Amino acid sequence: MIISPPTGTKDFGIQDCRIRRKIFDKLITVAEAFAFQPLETPAIERIETMQGKYGEEGEKLFFKILKRGEQANSGECDLALRYDLTVPAMRYYTSNRGKLPKIFKRFQYGPVWRAERPGKDRYRQFYQFDFDIYGSTLLSADIECLNVTISCLKAIGLNNFFIRLNSRKLLYALMNEFNVPENLFQTIITLIDKVDKIGVGELSENLMPYKDIGKIKELSNNFLKQNYNDLFINLLRLKKENVESIDELVELIKVSNTFLREDQIKIDMTLARGIDYYSGCIFEVEIPGIKGSIAAGGRYNHLSKLFIDEEVPVCGASLGIERIIPLIDGDSLEIINHVDVYISCTNNDFASIVKLANDLRSIGFRVESQRGSSGKFRKELSYANQINSIYFIFQGDNERQSNQFFLKDMKDNKIEGKFSYDEVIEMLKNLRK
Amino acid sequence: MIISPPTGTKDFGIQDCRIRRKIFDKLITVAEAFAFQPLETPAIERIETMQGKYGEEGEKLFFKILKRGEQANSGECDLALRYDLTVPAMRYYTSNRGKLPKIFKRFQYGPVWRAERPGKDRYRQFYQFDFDIYGSTLLSADIECLNVTISCLKAIGLNNFFIRLNSRKLLYALMNEFNVPENLFQTIITLIDKVDKIGVGELSENLMPYKDIGKIKELSNNFLKQNYNDLFINLLRLKKENVESIDELVELIKVSNTFLREDQIKIDMTLARGIDYYSGCIFEVEIPGIKGSIAAGGRYNHLSKLFIDEEVPVCGASLGIERIIPLIDGDSLEIINHVDVYISCTNNDFASIVKLANDLRSIGFRVESQRGSSGKFRKELSYANQINSIYFIFQGDNERQSNQFFLKDMKDNKIEGKFSYDEVIEMLKNLRK
Repeated sequence: MIISPPTGTKDFGIQDCRIRRKIFDKLITVAEAFAFQPLETPAIERIETMQGKYGEEGEKLFFKILKRGEQANSGECDLALRYDLTVPAMRYYTSNRGKLPKIFKRFQYGPVWRAERPGKDRYRQFYQFDFDIYGSTLLSADIECLNVTISCLKAIGLNNFFIRLNSRKLLYALMNEFNVPENLFQTIITLIDKVDKIGVGELSENLMPYKDIGKIKELSNNFLKQNYNDLFINLLRLKKENVESIDELVELIKVSNTFLREDQIKIDMTLARGIDYYSGCIFEVEIPGIKGSIAAGGRYNHLSKLFIDEEVPVCGASLGIERIIPLIDGDSLEIINHVDVYISCTNNDFASIVKLANDLRSIGFRVESQRGSSGKFRKELSYANQINSIYFIFQGDNERQSNQFFLKDMKDNKIEGKFSYDEVIEMLKNLRK
Repeated sequence: MIISPPTGTKDFGIQDCRIRRKIFDKLITVAEAFAFQPLETPAIERIETMQGKYGEEGEKLFFKILKRGEQANSGECDLALRYDLTVPAMRYYTSNRGKLPKIFKRFQYGPVWRAERPGKDRYRQFYQFDFDIYGSTLLSADIECLNVTISCLKAIGLNNFFIRLNSRKLLYALMNEFNVPENLFQTIITLIDKVDKIGVGELSENLMPYKDIGKIKELSNNFLKQNYNDLFINLLRLKKENVESIDELVELIKVSNTFLREDQIKIDMTLARGIDYYSGCIFEVEIPGIKGSIAAGGRYNHLSKLFIDEEVPVCGASLGIERIIPLIDGDSLEIINHVDVYISCTNNDFASIVKLANDLRSIGFRVESQRGSSGKFRKELSYANQINSIYFIFQGDNERQSNQFFLKDMKDNKIEGKFSYDEVIEMLKNLRK
C-alpha cells in the first residue's frame, strides 16, 4: 500500500506546523490591526458556484466530487473543492449583505485545491491568506489592500520584495485604442499574463493568428517591447477617459511611498493577472531572483454580477503561503521546541505523578510524563534529553514514601535538591522567572 | 443561482470565527502542555488509504473525487475527502516512523467530511481536534488520553460532563464467553454501539436473525438488560485472560480520580464505539441531557497492520468541535470585538492618514480608516460607533495645515484636545495603559 500523501499534497510535520502556525498568527494580527474581520467558508462548494468565474483555464483545474448514493453511478459531480477564497467569500457576501456593515472587511485563510500538474513548489493543495474590502469604490480601499499585503510580509520578516502595479481599466483602454475587438480582450489578457514565462518573442508568435485584427501587431510591437516608463508617458496622450485610471495609479504610488521605498513599486504594463474577474488596479509582489509572485491582488467590481443582479465594489489581495514559507528565516520566529519538565514514572505511583504534572500544566508548564523507554531510569533521562526537557523530576522509593521529589536541571546536569510536593512547584515557578 | 453553502456545510461569520479561533488556541495550549506536537495532513487522501478502515458504514460516507483529464469520463474516483484525522495520522506515522521519536505524541485539528444525511447539528463538514500517543503499550498512555480530553474540556469552560468507559478487549472476551463466532463480532459491536438510539428492545429484535447462533439470545438478555455494575462484578468471574482488561479499567478509573470527580466516570458495557479499529480501552464523553458524545477515544493497536506489516501500539481521542461550541459560554472567552481608533479621512490628505494609522498599528492598535459612508464627517462618526471604535481622530483644514489632530473619546463623547503627530501617538499609548 502507498503510504505517502496524494500526489501534489504534503504532510506538515512538527516543525512545519509550528512555523506555519506562527506565521498565520502574525498575519491574523496584521489583518486585525487593519480592522479586518474573520470569515470561514467550507472547503467544498456547489459546482455551479465556481463555474464561469475563473475562465477556461481555471475551469479545468477543479477537483470535482462525485454524487452520492444511487446517483454515484451516473459519474456526475455536484460539488467541487474550492479553487480560491475570493469566489466563496463573494458567495458569502452576496447571501449575507443585508446583515453586514456597509463597508465589510474580511480576512480568511485556508487551503485551496487545483488539479494542476504538480511540480517543485507547485502543490495541488496549498494555503492562501486572503483579505477583501467590500462596498467601497474609493481608491483608499485599493491602497489599503496593498498596505495590508506589505504589512503582512514585513510582519513575517520579508523586506526585499517589489511591487508590480497595473490597471485592468488601462489595459482595456489600451486595447480599445488599438481597435482590438472586445471578445478578444480576455485572450490577450491571458497572453500578456504569460509573457514572463513565454517571453515577448513567443507572445508575438501567439498573437500572430490575430495579426489582421485591428492594430494587434502594432500593439504587440509598441506595447510589449517598449520601456515601460516611456510607454506610461505615451499613454497619457491617450483618450480623456483613461486619465482617471492613470491618476489612480499615480496616487496609489504616491501614498504607498509612506510604507514602501520608491524603488519597490513600479507600473508594469505586462502585468495582467490571469483570472477573469479583475476590473481595476491590479498588483503582484515579487522577490528579486525568484520566479512568480508571492502575493497579488486587485479590484474586481464585476464578480458579484455572476451571483446577484448588482455590482458590488470590492478589492482584495491574497498571499501564497506555500511560496512565502521557504523564504522565511525560521530562527526569527522564536518557535518553542522544548518541554519544561519531564517527570519520571519508574516508581509506578502513577496517580501522584499525574496530579503533579497536571498542577504544573495548570500554571503554564509543558510537562511530559510518558516513558520513552522500557521504564529504566537511565533511559528516561536520555529520553528527557531527546525531547529537550529543561527539568527532570524523579522519586526513589524513599522519596515516594515521604512524597518528596528530586529536581534536576538538565542543562547544568545538576540536581537542585529534594523537595516536597508544594516546594517543587514553587521552585519551578521561581526558576522560570 | 443558489448562494448558500452546500447542503450540510456552514459559513462561519465574524463571531463564529472569533469563538472558534479562541477555542482552538486553548485546545492547542492544552495539547502542548502535555507535550503533544502538531501534525497536519492534507484534506484529500488516496481512496485506498481510507478503504477497509472504517467498516461498512464508514465506507458509504466518503466524498469521492473524480479522476481528472481524460479519465474523468470513466466516472472513476482516485481520491476522497478524509473521514477522520486518525487514519491519515496513522498513514503519516507508518511512512515517517524512522524519523520520529519512539513515543510520538501528535495533535491535529481540522475539518473532516462525511456524506451523511445532514440534520440539526449533523454537518457534512465538521471540525475535530485530535491527539494520539504512538509507540506506548502502557496504560499511562490510555490514562493520558483521557486526561488531555478532560483538560481540553475544562480549558474551554465545560465542567458538567461524564465519562462512559469500556474495553473492546472485554467486549470481545464477553462475546467469546457466549460462544459468538468471531465473524459476527463487528456486527454485534455495531449494534451495541447503537443501543442508545434504537433501544434495547429494537436491539434484541435486530439480534433475532442470529438467535440460533451460540448463546446470542442469552447474551442479549443477560448482557444488555442487566444493571451494569452487577454485570461488571459478574464479569470478574469470567476467564482468567479477562482479568487484565478489568484491572486496566479499575486502574484507569483510580488514576482519573486525580482529575475527575468519582461520579463523573463509570464503566458502561453498552459503550462499543462504532468504528472497527479500536482494540483496548474505549471512552466517550457526554453532557447530561444532551444526545450523543462530545469527545471520544480509545486504544487501536491493530490499525497499523492495514498499512504496514507490524503492530503499532497507539491510543488517542478526538473532540467534536461542532458539538462542543454550542455548549460554550461565549462571554467567558473574552473575545475582542472593538477597534481602538478610527481615523477620519474626510480631509483627503490620505498619505498622512495612512502613515499615522500604520504607526499606531505598529505599536499594537487596531485602526480603521476606511470611510463607511460618503465621507461626511457626521456619518464617519456614526460609522466609528457602529464598528465599536474607542477613539476617533480627525483634522479640520487648519489642523491639516499645521499637521495637528483632534482626539475624541467615543465612550465619553468628549474631545481630549488638539495634538501634534507625535503627541497624539503618545497620548493614545498613555490612555491604553
